[in-house]
Amino acid sequence: MIPNGRPSPGSGANVIRAAHGEYIVTDLERARTFYVDLLGFIETERTPDALYLRGIEERGHHSLVLTLGEQPAAGHLGFRVESDECLERVEHLAITENLPHRWVEPDEEPGQGRALRLQDPFGLPLEFFSSMARAERLLQRFDLHRGAQVMRFDHFNCQLPELQRAYEWYSSRLGFGCSEYTATDPTPDAKEQLWAVWLQRKQNVHDLALMNGIGPRVHHLGFWVADPLSVLRACDVLAAAGYEPNIERGPGRHGISNAFFLYLRDPDGNRIELYANDYLVADPDWEPIRWSLNDPRRATFWGHAAPPSWFDDAALCRSVITGELLPVRAPGLADRPQHVT
Amino acid sequence: MIPNGRPSPGSGANVIRAAHGEYIVTDLERARTFYVDLLGFIETERTPDALYLRGIEERGHHSLVLTLGEQPAAGHLGFRVESDECLERVEHLAITENLPHRWVEPDEEPGQGRALRLQDPFGLPLEFFSSMARAERLLQRFDLHRGAQVMRFDHFNCQLPELQRAYEWYSSRLGFGCSEYTATDPTPDAKEQLWAVWLQRKQNVHDLALMNGIGPRVHHLGFWVADPLSVLRACDVLAAAGYEPNIERGPGRHGISNAFFLYLRDPDGNRIELYANDYLVADPDWEPIRWSLNDPRRATFWGHAAPPSWFDDAALCRSVITGELLPVRAPGLADRPQHVT
Amino acid sequence: MIPNGRPSPGSGANVIRAAHGEYIVTDLERARTFYVDLLGFIETERTPDALYLRGIEERGHHSLVLTLGEQPAAGHLGFRVESDECLERVEHLAITENLPHRWVEPDEEPGQGRALRLQDPFGLPLEFFSSMARAERLLQRFDLHRGAQVMRFDHFNCQLPELQRAYEWYSSRLGFGCSEYTATDPTPDAKEQLWAVWLQRKQNVHDLALMNGIGPRVHHLGFWVADPLSVLRACDVLAAAGYEPNIERGPGRHGISNAFFLYLRDPDGNRIELYANDYLVADPDWEPIRWSLNDPRRATFWGHAAPPSWFDDAALCRSVITGELLPVRAPGLADRPQHVT
Amino acid sequence: MIPNGRPSPGSGANVIRAAHGEYIVTDLERARTFYVDLLGFIETERTPDALYLRGIEERGHHSLVLTLGEQPAAGHLGFRVESDECLERVEHLAITENLPHRWVEPDEEPGQGRALRLQDPFGLPLEFFSSMARAERLLQRFDLHRGAQVMRFDHFNCQLPELQRAYEWYSSRLGFGCSEYTATDPTPDAKEQLWAVWLQRKQNVHDLALMNGIGPRVHHLGFWVADPLSVLRACDVLAAAGYEPNIERGPGRHGISNAFFLYLRDPDGNRIELYANDYLVADPDWEPIRWSLNDPRRATFWGHAAPPSWFDDAALCRSVITGELLPVRAPGLADRPQHVT
Repeated sequence: MIPNGRPSPGSGANVIRAAHGEYIVTDLERARTFYVDLLGFIETERTPDALYLRGIEERGHHSLVLTLGEQPAAGHLGFRVESDECLERVEHLAITENLPHRWVEPDEEPGQGRALRLQDPFGLPLEFFSSMARAERLLQRFDLHRGAQVMRFDHFNCQLPELQRAYEWYSSRLGFGCSEYTATDPTPDAKEQLWAVWLQRKQNVHDLALMNGIGPRVHHLGFWVADPLSVLRACDVLAAAGYEPNIERGPGRHGISNAFFLYLRDPDGNRIELYANDYLVADPDWEPIRWSLNDPRRATFWGHAAPPSWFDDAALCRSVITGELLPVRAPGLADRPQHVT
Repeated sequence: MIPNGRPSPGSGANVIRAAHGEYIVTDLERARTFYVDLLGFIETERTPDALYLRGIEERGHHSLVLTLGEQPAAGHLGFRVESDECLERVEHLAITENLPHRWVEPDEEPGQGRALRLQDPFGLPLEFFSSMARAERLLQRFDLHRGAQVMRFDHFNCQLPELQRAYEWYSSRLGFGCSEYTATDPTPDAKEQLWAVWLQRKQNVHDLALMNGIGPRVHHLGFWVADPLSVLRACDVLAAAGYEPNIERGPGRHGISNAFFLYLRDPDGNRIELYANDYLVADPDWEPIRWSLNDPRRATFWGHAAPPSWFDDAALCRSVITGELLPVRAPGLADRPQHVT
Repeated sequence: MIPNGRPSPGSGANVIRAAHGEYIVTDLERARTFYVDLLGFIETERTPDALYLRGIEERGHHSLVLTLGEQPAAGHLGFRVESDECLERVEHLAITENLPHRWVEPDEEPGQGRALRLQDPFGLPLEFFSSMARAERLLQRFDLHRGAQVMRFDHFNCQLPELQRAYEWYSSRLGFGCSEYTATDPTPDAKEQLWAVWLQRKQNVHDLALMNGIGPRVHHLGFWVADPLSVLRACDVLAAAGYEPNIERGPGRHGISNAFFLYLRDPDGNRIELYANDYLVADPDWEPIRWSLNDPRRATFWGHAAPPSWFDDAALCRSVITGELLPVRAPGLADRPQHVT
Repeated sequence: MIPNGRPSPGSGANVIRAAHGEYIVTDLERARTFYVDLLGFIETERTPDALYLRGIEERGHHSLVLTLGEQPAAGHLGFRVESDECLERVEHLAITENLPHRWVEPDEEPGQGRALRLQDPFGLPLEFFSSMARAERLLQRFDLHRGAQVMRFDHFNCQLPELQRAYEWYSSRLGFGCSEYTATDPTPDAKEQLWAVWLQRKQNVHDLALMNGIGPRVHHLGFWVADPLSVLRACDVLAAAGYEPNIERGPGRHGISNAFFLYLRDPDGNRIELYANDYLVADPDWEPIRWSLNDPRRATFWGHAAPPSWFDDAALCRSVITGELLPVRAPGLADRPQHVT
């Protein structure tokens, strides 16, 4: 089964892009040191319970929310839609499919207009919103740039055990196109199966990657940086400040997406990716690029092998209704390629 | 008058993006040395009359056409549209507005499906197409990358004397949104007037910039490179090979678009820009960024002053019907800011 | 006359390297903003009358002294010598040649051991010292690096009207070797004449460049940065903070020394160069590289033409005895190449 | 025991610098693909039995010799000395200490003047020479640069079991200074012992590193590249051409020397390092930087852990008399820090 290469209307949600993510952290000040002082995220607002951060090219109030909580977890995954009417269509979808959902009032999440949160059929905690307060764009305030010089939010990467079904849901309901995918190799006993998909609405490789694995879990939030030098500077700055152990994997290059990548764990263990060097996906005849699960270039075009933690650890997801952590399920397929087991 | 920040349906052309440009050159071999051997464009096809080149991340047959001719000029400006039906709508527009136009048969332009060429109301030679043959994407063949490592086509920059009207036409008929613009400062005697606009369909700063000036002329074709280092390498390579005089302006940074830029003149004098460091324009509430014509940071955030040739020279445009060069008209507004006159 | 490619014992001064320079500034706080806050120099010590700064790899107390005074000027040019005994030999040279000189007591210049200042025969204000207090080296405190990330002092560039004699003096008395030089082209009426020399003691292109011109004047102090990206970042940071007019020339590449260069004017007009990409000069058979004065690649391998100010302006020199500014003399040779006059 | 920070006259060899190394390879054409086509070394000369390569800034005939042989090994380690008289002093040293040695006739090693080869007391195969034929320097032929853009030879890194004695010999006989060193931590039962030393004659961190380990073996030849981007480009080019398995370790940063490093294995398994971002060591009061063996930042300021092969594998050394491979001895100290065992 070859995934569909292009975004489609789906059910009319008109998702513009993955726009912000939320992690639960247990110490806001400690998180602030990591994200703001070292990595150079811009702080838009701070409340007693949360930090609202953005990248240097962003004009919106926040693209990363760090919320105080008792244990690290993934809060919600925020998608921006074209207009408020799209929110109604998403509510209709939630009602039709009997998905847990609730409205978030304007400014209940600071800076954000009315939004709808829902749990997707596999457990991921999605949020849809169409308006966001403006913040000063600091793209040309080079005198204020620091650390990794994070430009903007790029994507969510999530693990789910029902990969094929999840792909179909995101493709048909929310209209995601597939830029690249990983499949198992067919054998006499088993057909090719989807193992991971890189899905996009905005015009680059992805807004949402779904990987086969124990889930629902959020593997990482991906932030776009302008070039590999920003990634190296992040390594230097983190190591100089004593945060070398927070560098989990990389720098290296993925075959998939051509990403020059670095994976970091924040002081609570939440994972983010610094991500450069992807490409434009805009043409109507885009054909998804297929990678075999066991092609070593797929995940590591070059670079050291990923440590076991990169496969084992990911953030549990909160219920959008109760805030409680959701239980996870194991996948039917192996959760990592042969060459790393 | 504040331009509209977002793409709109317009008359239904569904333009995906600026996709390729054509320059007329007087010596194909000489042009090949410049574009392929030095700058690192990939050669897809060569005929006795033309070279078809592409950037290293591109999967389409060509993004730059160099056609043999008696004098340098701009051939056509190619826009990719969503589907073949869109071409019919563009034809309808041409008929309605009485614009010179003609169909280009499949493979009349090698690698391209059926296309429609038309002269816009101001004289620019546009081409619309929806399908293009595939070529091998060399993004990850790093062993073959050379020179400027041009990634992909990015934009057209054209000069027209009827800037305000041209903006309105591209906004209403072809649905372009405006990311940034330059305006004159209002005085007791004169209202603010549009002086230049950066217009986009794909999700970055522009597919088409229109600048006030003698026109219709094509000022440059812009190609996207991944980072400033690619630009510096282009300078080094060109200078080492004796092409330093072909570097007309830069490297430097524009305030508009945040571009790290370099302007080159090919051996026939046709101008291209190497362009890095722009940003994502995707959100529905994008408000165009206004620059005063006389703000020196607008064109030169930093860098040496542009030489007179950068203001004086641009490529004449061909008739899409006869191929003859079109006459030009002078603008009512000054064609350059006060600080460079 | 071909200059001598290698350092020699000379009169036994055992100069290790050009180590620090002094500029007179009229406003210390304004200078601090420019050098420390924006360019990222490290502040070692501040007195009511002076700032003592260093680069991020330097272990010595200072490599740039900014002294409060009534008008901008060059204070002294500091050369480090092997040992205190070398200072005696330099004193002997000063006495023998009847050069104005005086001893500087330990810590009269903060952090520095006993030193000898002398006016060279052409008027340049030299200082020789062998010991300097330690400061913390911040090379691996990447979290503290800012702006241009200046690594270390590299060289002095001075203008003198008696270029040939000056070269001979520095070669024979202080043992400098010549890495590269500029000469006029011989004509039927005139032999080749030295126009500029790049002289070295440490193992790169130069510690001291002497250029034909109105002098004695100090054209610039050169600081080494690790790569071209540091130079671009300096441009971005300066422009963002409103200091674009302080960027006088560049970025570009010199043919001579292969320098990727940027020339800045501090708020008092004193000039510094940010300098990357030179090379190792260590082998005993080094032959100086000759450049014709009128070879355009010599000064500008690529890049915009230097503005007139780059040729016209330079810092006057102080008397090492009285501190008064020395009068200047005009050169017999033209002070700039034909292609820029 | 604190090593001596500065070069000294030693026995008068006047070593200028580590200048070239020789590896034995079993297939010259295969080696040529790796070093010349992919990494961008310049080929100066090729004989039926050997390749003579250089970096892009080098003016000498070769800095890397690849000699055809039956099994991979280290041939000789070439040090350039000030003059031919220095060779006589080295011969005197060899005779006095009863070290195996022989004269190499001019051009016996193509491009090289008369040279002396000797086995140091620990088994390393040294060569001393003072003159080398000139080759064209391609530093400014940017149009010819490829791959890693290797600039020049930098250093030898060797393993010996008698580290303390070896340091003393190189310091007293050949006058090397120590820039940085690794020591064991003192315990109630054992004093601090030297574990590795970085020794220099030219003015950067090292010409010769000696590490405690099974020896005599050559761990790697180090080549200097201008910046981290050259290293990343090498990774991309190698991986694109199918040589990802030849990337053994890195990229990453060493605490020692501040090196941004990459370790490669050539098709025969010989190891080279691409090395950027070290610093100037020139001042007479340099104090060696001490690192504890068990400080994890020492070897990996940041970056993945070194694989076991990096500790286990190294090139055996040839006898300078017979060409036979020398037996090795095991060290008394552990050959790797606690945190990697």
